[in-house]
Amino acid sequence: MSILIKNVLLDDTSTDVFIVENIIHQIGTDLNPATDHIIDGTDKAILPSFINAHTHSAMTHFRGFGDDMPLMEWLEKNIWPNEIRLNEELVYAGAKLACLEMIKSGITFFNDMYWFPRGVARAVSDIGMRALVNAVFIDLNDSEKAREQIAMNEELYYELKGRERIHVGLGPHAVYTVSESSLLWIKDFAETHDLMIHIHLSETEQEVQDWHDKHCVSPVEYLHRLGLLSPRLVTAHCVWVTDKDIDLLAANGVNVAHNPISNMKLSVNRHFPYTKFLDAGVNICLGTDGVGSNNNLSMFDTMKVAALLQKHHETPETLPATECFNMATINGYRCFDLPGGEVKEGMLADLILVDLNLPEMIPCHHLISNMVYSANASVVDTTICNGKILMQNRKVMGEEEIIYQARKTAKQFLG
Amino acid sequence: MSILIKNVLLDDTSTDVFIVENIIHQIGTDLNPATDHIIDGTDKAILPSFINAHTHSAMTHFRGFGDDMPLMEWLEKNIWPNEIRLNEELVYAGAKLACLEMIKSGITFFNDMYWFPRGVARAVSDIGMRALVNAVFIDLNDSEKAREQIAMNEELYYELKGRERIHVGLGPHAVYTVSESSLLWIKDFAETHDLMIHIHLSETEQEVQDWHDKHCVSPVEYLHRLGLLSPRLVTAHCVWVTDKDIDLLAANGVNVAHNPISNMKLSVNRHFPYTKFLDAGVNICLGTDGVGSNNNLSMFDTMKVAALLQKHHETPETLPATECFNMATINGYRCFDLPGGEVKEGMLADLILVDLNLPEMIPCHHLISNMVYSANASVVDTTICNGKILMQNRKVMGEEEIIYQARKTAKQFLG
Repeated sequence: MSILIKNVLLDDTSTDVFIVENIIHQIGTDLNPATDHIIDGTDKAILPSFINAHTHSAMTHFRGFGDDMPLMEWLEKNIWPNEIRLNEELVYAGAKLACLEMIKSGITFFNDMYWFPRGVARAVSDIGMRALVNAVFIDLNDSEKAREQIAMNEELYYELKGRERIHVGLGPHAVYTVSESSLLWIKDFAETHDLMIHIHLSETEQEVQDWHDKHCVSPVEYLHRLGLLSPRLVTAHCVWVTDKDIDLLAANGVNVAHNPISNMKLSVNRHFPYTKFLDAGVNICLGTDGVGSNNNLSMFDTMKVAALLQKHHETPETLPATECFNMATINGYRCFDLPGGEVKEGMLADLILVDLNLPEMIPCHHLISNMVYSANASVVDTTICNGKILMQNRKVMGEEEIIYQARKTAKQFLG
Repeated sequence: MSILIKNVLLDDTSTDVFIVENIIHQIGTDLNPATDHIIDGTDKAILPSFINAHTHSAMTHFRGFGDDMPLMEWLEKNIWPNEIRLNEELVYAGAKLACLEMIKSGITFFNDMYWFPRGVARAVSDIGMRALVNAVFIDLNDSEKAREQIAMNEELYYELKGRERIHVGLGPHAVYTVSESSLLWIKDFAETHDLMIHIHLSETEQEVQDWHDKHCVSPVEYLHRLGLLSPRLVTAHCVWVTDKDIDLLAANGVNVAHNPISNMKLSVNRHFPYTKFLDAGVNICLGTDGVGSNNNLSMFDTMKVAALLQKHHETPETLPATECFNMATINGYRCFDLPGGEVKEGMLADLILVDLNLPEMIPCHHLISNMVYSANASVVDTTICNGKILMQNRKVMGEEEIIYQARKTAKQFLG
């Protein structure tokens, strides 16, 4: 299987890109290899696809389902009473809608944490994306629950390991919902099987304050003491961190997934310490968080808001467009240890073609500036993941059926 | 001329909307009047179109042309040396591109302030939108310049007055760039001819501090002393205002155009005092500002960022979706004294139809939440202004030519 993309803009130059199997095989001008498929790249630019470093994909069901409410009221009234109605089929339908939305905005990999992860894995597998699938691990210090969760995670790992494009990981919800012994089990299991760990960390002032009051250390210091800080850890949020926390995260190669929209919408009331993380050398990625607190899965919105938020608190020079674009692409590939995030020979063919004929993209003095500050998801014309075309001319195969099913299932959550 | 829109969603109910000339004539079910044109509204919702309450339309030429720079360096290196190259034809091409982008994101009216306003007026007239066209009035306390500016504004008023869909106003740039005598002339001329006045006000801390150091009053208090505060005034920004300023603006019925993206991107370093303005009863509208500091003209980005910014500084309940949507619609109609901003019989037929089949719009538990937090410009399928279809199925008549011309002219600004 091969794809030849002709006359596409790469670094301001018209270029041909030849994909063989799942790899960018050759980049040059006037390439004419035998190929299965040719894409005309005229008036389009080629770029790496996006990585969504933190989400709860099946929460698409709850889009707009209780906004503008305090966090606990929202969870208690709108989310939890509906989440107990979930099953694998409902999660499959919600995750499939999420995958469709992500492909349509140029995302080919997402890092998930949710209930019924088999439903998520099946959606990803069927649609052709990549994902790191993590079950939500919560035991609330209950040893019976801990045993169940461990058994479920072991089973899930053996079931999903080796599946194409599916990475299985461990998803301890947060330090305050998972017992110390379970966190230690997670650490050992991850090390034994070389898995990523995905956790919410230091999102709100209250949670950090409460933890400190009880344990006299910050959540980050606590994870450090347990030996969980390492490059296999992806921490979502990290807004309420101290300088010492930042140093610990940096020294141990931890990846941070910044979710600016969710943080602002839920009023975490502090801006992400981007410059400190950058100076400390931490690998910073971008995430949308779940649709419940965003309310979409667009990395375009996320990039723009991330840059605006930093400039709002610091200077116009803070978090320039190129750094922001890298956070949404190459930093994500680095985090999940995938050879991609750049349009270079030998890299994974995870790519997008963007339409340069839309008003938001004109003029195109600086492509990356247009991508970060001006474009929206609709500029993505073609999405390629692992050498396969998932969308072309903005059409995804089977999208009508996905939408039909998602609409139908969403009705079960009303009332 | 009439248009019948069949089976479109209005307030969660399938409805018919009948437009005669430029007015919403009848709303009901099973309408079957004789009509010139029928639109199938199946799987679409009908909403009022947006008002962009502050922009510099022809700055589309400078999209992405110097981001991530301090304000003065950006102006001195990238903007001013290029603005001196402008002429009416270049402004026409830039404004036409802006109009195209705005129609494609559902905006039918914008409040402009820029050089060569005849170019802007011609673009608006040709494409079929509405606008309040204001020349930039700057005299820098130079009486010769003041005379020129006054003559130019008088001439422009007599030339443009009475033109369909074109409102002509007065655009004093700011208190620090326009002499007191010119501001008084502007006030008198506006009162005599019943015109709006459009000014930048209290955008940065520096500008407010400098003014206070020299004049011992705030810019708002100064305008009050001159008698300029009234419902005919639209003030862009108003970020660095005191409680007393807010009371003065409220008591005098002044309209405020909030530009959250521009404020954040240029690091005004303070959040718009939304709740205080709301409590004081001020009519708050939304603006994109120019593309140079945004970098697009989408009210979707603007609504979402406006809501996020307030929640970031206050609580999740602050600036809920409906208030935000109203700021972008009905508050704008109120500001510019136009009978619109609602889908009701007797209102101006300034309307959009949005596509409910896109993943960002599914599920649709709350349409307005989806519009504010999830949608982007591409959900707008049809834009109607003054009873004329400007876009249908996302196609605007002549868009290829507009894009061709904008691309060609943009090259003159490089290097």
